[in-house]
Amino acid sequence: METIKIKGDVYNSNCPTRHVLNRIGDKWTALIIGLLEDGPMRFSTLRQNIVGISQKMLTQTLRNLERDGLVSRTLYPEVPPRVEYTLTPLGETLCTPIAAIRHWAEEHIAEVTAAQEIYDTR
Amino acid sequence: METIKIKGDVYNSNCPTRHVLNRIGDKWTALIIGLLEDGPMRFSTLRQNIVGISQKMLTQTLRNLERDGLVSRTLYPEVPPRVEYTLTPLGETLCTPIAAIRHWAEEHIAEVTAAQEIYDTR
Repeated sequence: METIKIKGDVYNSNCPTRHVLNRIGDKWTALIIGLLEDGPMRFSTLRQNIVGISQKMLTQTLRNLERDGLVSRTLYPEVPPRVEYTLTPLGETLCTPIAAIRHWAEEHIAEVTAAQEIYDTR
Repeated sequence: METIKIKGDVYNSNCPTRHVLNRIGDKWTALIIGLLEDGPMRFSTLRQNIVGISQKMLTQTLRNLERDGLVSRTLYPEVPPRVEYTLTPLGETLCTPIAAIRHWAEEHIAEVTAAQEIYDTR
């Protein structure tokens, strides 16, 4: 049986890859995936580690990531109930590319800030 | 003379790296940098290649990229005047990480779409 390889084109706005690019490019996604890289995490711990994210935004982003098949949500029927988020195998394939983006931001911030200061005074 | 290495923390909302992460994660940025990777390009050619981007959004994104020191704008005083956009050396360092994100979106779209369909019917 022949396997048909579906390949997308992010430059075409009608292609679903464009939406996926937007989702995985989202700053919250990059931060959440970076945290889950180290193992499962509870909602409250994620929220503590991502300074500035609202409860609503974290809920919405996790739901989107779950819908995209990148994160799985597990409910442990304890008292009180415990909910943990884990990267799926598909989500794990995103760790390396997203870490590269995060590291770029952290490594090159001084150059970007310097460029902004020059731009703003010209 | 000692060099002080400034290193950011994208998990802190007060850190400028958070803003940079948001900027470089933007889907338009990923698409523009991917096109400029092959060499300088005029505004109109960029617009033709990025299906769905408005003139206003392309102008704004290019201005932000110029301010961040990632893209340079060159005006050639011809008739009619020609404006070309080029990656700066700093912008070139972003090509590899951004290409990895773009390729991920194109390669894994079938898995993401399948996950979404399962999620939506449950």
